[in-house]
Amino acid sequence: METYTVTILPENIHATAEENATLKKVFTENGIKFEFPCGGMGKCKKCKVKIVKGNSSEEVLACQFKVTEDVIVEIPKKEQKYEILSEGVERKVVLDPLVKKRYLDLPLPSLEDNRDDWDRLRGNIGLKPSLKVLRELPERIRESNFKVTVVTWEDEVLAVEKGDTRREILGMAFDIGTTTIAGYLINLSTGSEIARVSALNPQTKYGADVISRINLASETPDGLEKLHAEVINEINNLIDKALSGTDFKREDIYAVTIVGNTTMQHLFLKVQPKHLALAPYVPVFSEPMVVDAAELGININPNGKVFTLPNIAGFVGADTVGAALACEMDKYDDLRLLIDIGTNGEMVLGTKERLFACSTAAGPAFEGAHIACGMRGATGAIDHAKIDGEIKYTVIGGVEPVGICGSGLLDIVAELLKVGVVDKKGRILKPEELSGEGEIYKDRIREINGIRAFIIEENTPTGQPVYINQKDIRELQLAKGAIAAGIEILLNTFGAKVKDIKEVFLAGAFGNYLKPESACKIGLIPPELEGRIKPVGNAAGTGAKLALVSEKEYERALALSRKIHYIELSAVSEFSRIFAKKIEF
Amino acid sequence: METYTVTILPENIHATAEENATLKKVFTENGIKFEFPCGGMGKCKKCKVKIVKGNSSEEVLACQFKVTEDVIVEIPKKEQKYEILSEGVERKVVLDPLVKKRYLDLPLPSLEDNRDDWDRLRGNIGLKPSLKVLRELPERIRESNFKVTVVTWEDEVLAVEKGDTRREILGMAFDIGTTTIAGYLINLSTGSEIARVSALNPQTKYGADVISRINLASETPDGLEKLHAEVINEINNLIDKALSGTDFKREDIYAVTIVGNTTMQHLFLKVQPKHLALAPYVPVFSEPMVVDAAELGININPNGKVFTLPNIAGFVGADTVGAALACEMDKYDDLRLLIDIGTNGEMVLGTKERLFACSTAAGPAFEGAHIACGMRGATGAIDHAKIDGEIKYTVIGGVEPVGICGSGLLDIVAELLKVGVVDKKGRILKPEELSGEGEIYKDRIREINGIRAFIIEENTPTGQPVYINQKDIRELQLAKGAIAAGIEILLNTFGAKVKDIKEVFLAGAFGNYLKPESACKIGLIPPELEGRIKPVGNAAGTGAKLALVSEKEYERALALSRKIHYIELSAVSEFSRIFAKKIEF
Repeated sequence: METYTVTILPENIHATAEENATLKKVFTENGIKFEFPCGGMGKCKKCKVKIVKGNSSEEVLACQFKVTEDVIVEIPKKEQKYEILSEGVERKVVLDPLVKKRYLDLPLPSLEDNRDDWDRLRGNIGLKPSLKVLRELPERIRESNFKVTVVTWEDEVLAVEKGDTRREILGMAFDIGTTTIAGYLINLSTGSEIARVSALNPQTKYGADVISRINLASETPDGLEKLHAEVINEINNLIDKALSGTDFKREDIYAVTIVGNTTMQHLFLKVQPKHLALAPYVPVFSEPMVVDAAELGININPNGKVFTLPNIAGFVGADTVGAALACEMDKYDDLRLLIDIGTNGEMVLGTKERLFACSTAAGPAFEGAHIACGMRGATGAIDHAKIDGEIKYTVIGGVEPVGICGSGLLDIVAELLKVGVVDKKGRILKPEELSGEGEIYKDRIREINGIRAFIIEENTPTGQPVYINQKDIRELQLAKGAIAAGIEILLNTFGAKVKDIKEVFLAGAFGNYLKPESACKIGLIPPELEGRIKPVGNAAGTGAKLALVSEKEYERALALSRKIHYIELSAVSEFSRIFAKKIEF
Repeated sequence: METYTVTILPENIHATAEENATLKKVFTENGIKFEFPCGGMGKCKKCKVKIVKGNSSEEVLACQFKVTEDVIVEIPKKEQKYEILSEGVERKVVLDPLVKKRYLDLPLPSLEDNRDDWDRLRGNIGLKPSLKVLRELPERIRESNFKVTVVTWEDEVLAVEKGDTRREILGMAFDIGTTTIAGYLINLSTGSEIARVSALNPQTKYGADVISRINLASETPDGLEKLHAEVINEINNLIDKALSGTDFKREDIYAVTIVGNTTMQHLFLKVQPKHLALAPYVPVFSEPMVVDAAELGININPNGKVFTLPNIAGFVGADTVGAALACEMDKYDDLRLLIDIGTNGEMVLGTKERLFACSTAAGPAFEGAHIACGMRGATGAIDHAKIDGEIKYTVIGGVEPVGICGSGLLDIVAELLKVGVVDKKGRILKPEELSGEGEIYKDRIREINGIRAFIIEENTPTGQPVYINQKDIRELQLAKGAIAAGIEILLNTFGAKVKDIKEVFLAGAFGNYLKPESACKIGLIPPELEGRIKPVGNAAGTGAKLALVSEKEYERALALSRKIHYIELSAVSEFSRIFAKKIEF
């Protein structure tokens, strides 16, 4: 009886079939996992495969098609849905990462088939070789008797591994914030999140904000090198931390995705950010970059890739692109607003047709910076408060308070406005100016270091009272004024009104913890949007994860970055006027 | 009066034009070289340019078109013909190398145009950035006030140079032969050949043929590394030698093209050639490779590229592809035969529709190897001879003879056949067997080291006679038999007869020096083709030069490599029979 070769794609398995055998039989005999829901009766039409002929193909039912010549069969890709877990957004995407593994059982060379090793490996897949891979190839394929797993990045072969290693493929997504670095270790063969780690950005020891880092990088000879080394080193620490306690090794990680603001992206890649701090604030690049991990010194598989999402402008970076991707800002017919508050505040407004973005340096106050008793959202921070005759508050970790974080600050000011201790202009009234309901807070108002302050808690572990002072309120006013003005300018640019905004996505740790009613009370967000606020957690990190697990989402991020029009607020003539107006409560 | 910006492609020059100025005026004022043969009367229609609008464009006459808004104008590329000089083939191709320089006079950044540096540089050209380029970019473009020259390889930016450096761009083409390495230094801005250099392949000290090199590479631990280092080192020497006495520097060389047989290509790239020597003789790769010069340790510009032409099979390499390109084997309607005899002998036969190739290890005899008095074609070698009662010969360098090179060997055997000293079977007759005309050579026949020999010259500088012996003739018979059998098998495969061959291209140094009538007399080439033989010199090197100066010729080489079907002679059942038949004269 005649026998034929059945080449099964995409895995390029070469099976032998007797004349008139059905593909069902061939699949079963060769251990190909494929479902025949109706048992091979030809009724359910679910077992469709493609017979590839040159550049065209024809669809047939695997249970009915009989082999009468050598054929190439392509099994359609099964769409595996992968759930991105995050605090706020839930997204289901098809697991299809940029870095892929493919198992190949290659035909052995013979005088009749003496294709070169590379050609044999590549088979029907369009791939490009690297010198490194060619140098290892002849030994690698022979030691495993021509059964290998190929690791690819687009059409580039990163590595050839012995035998079937498809289960060992990891990726890691990082959100490099000015203050915090968050990392997510993902199993790219299942889509599950293996570990979530975070650390303080070690660059903070050279300055809390991006400007101080840019100055260090541009003004001292080894400043850029130092800041770059700090972040690379911390990322390597986080990789080790994420792997610890698992059976996986660094070599299993083949891809790392990075998002960060434009300055963080420059420092990560050791590109001089100097001109970001000088008008007209030009970055060196906005392109998405793909770099060999080895070139950057990232300790994953030495053949692995590190890729960054694109930036939009000097102060709207890949983190905003990631957040916009996580919130699917490219899918809505009606208006959506995304506010991502970290050390800076970035906003994106628009519909699937048109999107605009701007940035303000408004963030630090919300992270507790430049606030008398300010601190990050960590144990000991007052994160929420209510003033209602008495002063009630909650403290992170349930301990006694040592300071106030952003969401606490927002609540306190909103409550003080409500009870009349702070007026519309942001002034803390003198004790003697308080009247009616306000009088009960008289004793809490006093001068500390020559500045009028309002005491929240007298008894603290440090012995120092926790309070907010007049200067803190001014800081908050500047911060919320800048964001409110940004929102108004985006609305004006788009040609819409506040009421047209159907939903507000609040991203960043601060966005996740703030009380929407307080944000609206102080005018950070227009009050009429109070019921439409949706906290979305670290949306930038979620975006990085999406780009890591799905090529389509990565492409979507690139499209988003091109679609979002950047508005440089300092070039908008009415900005100062609107900002001044928005400073009042 | 209103003024507009005229962006002039492909050089991305930004000019300012007053309203209603013609493009002719704009070009003239901005020093753009452009010809107006009819003086701008709109009559000759020679000054056509394209007005680019989004993805489409419209053709206008530069002398007539008036500027009434900001426009992008594209000047069509002028086709510059470049003559490839070589011993045998003359080819005129458009100078359009893969590595290109483009001068850009960029608009300065402003708040209204705060594109990032990379985007500004890239302009309307689709280019990809490398990390190295981004790291240098901000300083490089500012130190030259945004006037820079960009060096590209396809869509990759290799380097950004300060100011206008378009004149400094060189390339070097190498033909790495088993015995000889030839190099050609080309000015890629003019197409002229600056220098031609050559050296003995230093790998010869480990063995004369490819098999001995493959054995060394596969059997000793550092064999591959050693052979690789030898060739890289010699190529670097040849680069220095080619540059010496010129005002150019290594950094001006941005591209190196390599051709060589499959083994030489493996050793050059440090890829294990082991399996080339074992049935079924599979190479590791045949693909054309593009590698960073720095990765290979080739001392040209550290951002430069080294690229190899593709191989066809284990024993038909990129040198054959280069030779086929030089001879334009892809252009003929009727049959052409290319024979490239170096240390190996490769043949290509076919028309533009179909091409077949095969290889024999027949070469060494023609290079003087395994021949009693054999030597390479150097000073002291008998290169031509005539036996006509007396024995006349010429010696390379006009000195007294010390040995015989390939073309001399061919002539001597052909003449001895003619005068009847050697018979059809290749036997040197005994003195007593000679009769008639042959008798006068009686004294020249004697035993040397127990083997019958024919003395060419008794008086030599070494005191030893120069002769050929029975074993030499057997070697020559094996060599010519293999080539003649290869030709017959290619003809059978194609389905044609000897008479259908319209032209025979004889490549390689041997091919250039041999006397066609001798080649036909001994049956190396079928006698009926005697008038159709064209020596083409080092066609492989010519092919390498063509691929270096012309992207189109490079693409043509890739197409040729895919088009040429390889015939593995050891897998052809009738090979031994035909070979045996061809051994006789």
